[in-house]
Amino acid sequence: MPELRQNFFTKEWVIIATERAKRPEELSTHRSPRKIPPFVESCPFCPGNEGKTPPEILRVPGDAGASWQVRVIPNKFAALQRDLQPTRTIQRSRRSLVGFGVHDVIIDTPDHAQPMARMSDACVANVLRAYKARYDALSLDSRIAQVTIFKNHGADAGTSLEHPHSQLIASPVISHQVRERLEEALRHYDEYGECMFCQMIAEELAEQTRLVLASDHFVALEPFASPTPFATYIFPRRHMAGFADAGASEITDLARVLRTVLAKLYHGLQDPDFNYTIRSAPTEATGVKYFHWYVSIIPRLTRVAGFELGSGMFINTVLPEAAAQFLRELRVEAGPLGP
Amino acid sequence: MPELRQNFFTKEWVIIATERAKRPEELSTHRSPRKIPPFVESCPFCPGNEGKTPPEILRVPGDAGASWQVRVIPNKFAALQRDLQPTRTIQRSRRSLVGFGVHDVIIDTPDHAQPMARMSDACVANVLRAYKARYDALSLDSRIAQVTIFKNHGADAGTSLEHPHSQLIASPVISHQVRERLEEALRHYDEYGECMFCQMIAEELAEQTRLVLASDHFVALEPFASPTPFATYIFPRRHMAGFADAGASEITDLARVLRTVLAKLYHGLQDPDFNYTIRSAPTEATGVKYFHWYVSIIPRLTRVAGFELGSGMFINTVLPEAAAQFLRELRVEAGPLGP
Repeated sequence: MPELRQNFFTKEWVIIATERAKRPEELSTHRSPRKIPPFVESCPFCPGNEGKTPPEILRVPGDAGASWQVRVIPNKFAALQRDLQPTRTIQRSRRSLVGFGVHDVIIDTPDHAQPMARMSDACVANVLRAYKARYDALSLDSRIAQVTIFKNHGADAGTSLEHPHSQLIASPVISHQVRERLEEALRHYDEYGECMFCQMIAEELAEQTRLVLASDHFVALEPFASPTPFATYIFPRRHMAGFADAGASEITDLARVLRTVLAKLYHGLQDPDFNYTIRSAPTEATGVKYFHWYVSIIPRLTRVAGFELGSGMFINTVLPEAAAQFLRELRVEAGPLGP
Repeated sequence: MPELRQNFFTKEWVIIATERAKRPEELSTHRSPRKIPPFVESCPFCPGNEGKTPPEILRVPGDAGASWQVRVIPNKFAALQRDLQPTRTIQRSRRSLVGFGVHDVIIDTPDHAQPMARMSDACVANVLRAYKARYDALSLDSRIAQVTIFKNHGADAGTSLEHPHSQLIASPVISHQVRERLEEALRHYDEYGECMFCQMIAEELAEQTRLVLASDHFVALEPFASPTPFATYIFPRRHMAGFADAGASEITDLARVLRTVLAKLYHGLQDPDFNYTIRSAPTEATGVKYFHWYVSIIPRLTRVAGFELGSGMFINTVLPEAAAQFLRELRVEAGPLGP
């Protein structure tokens, strides 16, 4: 029997229609493993080609044998440009702003063939520290309103470059979607005197059915009203509105949790294309009592079609409780796995 | 220079980044024409296989040689089911509703190989009349809150069946996205005493730069803050909140406009995958002064990636004014085109 579930945080309805369900193995879009070499001479992100990228913003130095572990560079094909002033124009129904902003690329590793799911926890922690250094630096710029950190893995997730990398876009406006979620969370806080995310995390920890894993500082779970199969969220246990508030030990712990969840998806769904994004309160709302940052991981196993576009409602063919059980029971090695 | 544009109706920001632009010909994802036979014996929607579908709800009878022109049937793999009661359950953060609803399939034509872009205006009008008959019938059911009519054309648009068809999903809830757009339109009406869509249409008709075509009753245009390349909207000139308000002569005119716009996309972008959807006020808001229904056509030329998922902001690499000029200047035959 199909079920409509309402997202507690956004009030969006999702249709859970498991009559159409496939087994997790059938959801994977990649039947045979990707064959990727560890070094590609023409790849601008591979070691030795540092001169092919715009000048470096930040680097995590390498240890034995490598000159770097993580590099942050400006995106050569930036969607927004740093050398502009965000001037606004309003002409009746037409509202626009000069395209000021920052668009960075974070090169996760020198190894062309090593997705995050197969990195060591220490390497993932380096990537997260680079995210945070850039996030913190950009938060100081008063022209920046929102910093979005994300990763596109695979062609279906919108990437054109194979070498493992992440991106950051800092925009001079708060997006409507983020503004609206803040308002919803504020309404809840005003009515109940609690962070709605903290409340949900406590409920999920008690109920266990949608839990994927829990560490000292983080909880990974399938959301009750999951819009797509195997959407997985990682929440800090401690109340924090913004990514900037995460402490050093939390970043280290998040690296382990993120890598483990990605490894579970990698092995369980045969290296699916996916996006992840750090959903933080915008910089001006760092510290508020009503919002809670998290990492949202979205495997790209299905296509958005006309119904989703025309209504904003999603149809999900996998029960979140079944996805959670599948991921929870999947054993993955600690640390780096063989190639 | 990139530009941020704000959608007047939804307040969503879009990044227009034309430095990354491609020419329209390069956007097409289909280099060689699809090869589709006019009849497929195993296709449940082809003539002679009527017994393979669930019992018919509605039929537009055929003329010489064909027993039908359009058929409406229940979706065999329905996302929502008609024989349920929409009972609601609330347990703290978990809100759900039994999956009551209606999920129809509209078989556009008996011809397996004839996409709407190559139909006659009369055939498209038959399809639209079938939409309207079902829309009107379902609007009478007090358990139904919203009726979404849509088409998925091609695999990237989420279709699995090749035979030209459309779908309708009637849900017992108003989706959050639709609710929010209504609220935004109401706010504008309360402040300015006008329908914000009527105002924009008047502006666009005066300015002409984003216009694709205009008929007696409809205006097709590229929206100023277009989220994706070649997104095209068709608005009725007359103020109407709901699709149910469209009159017979308007439906006939819409058929011609819709077929012409689809033919322009078909020839200009080499038969791209696309979705269209009829964006109407929900049934309970039929007749309101502040909302305006329209047809939204979204060619699926690009992939949604992590930035869009994580912020709700889109990056569009094609200037809407350039897309409008391209489509405006493209000549397509009136009526059916050769196979």
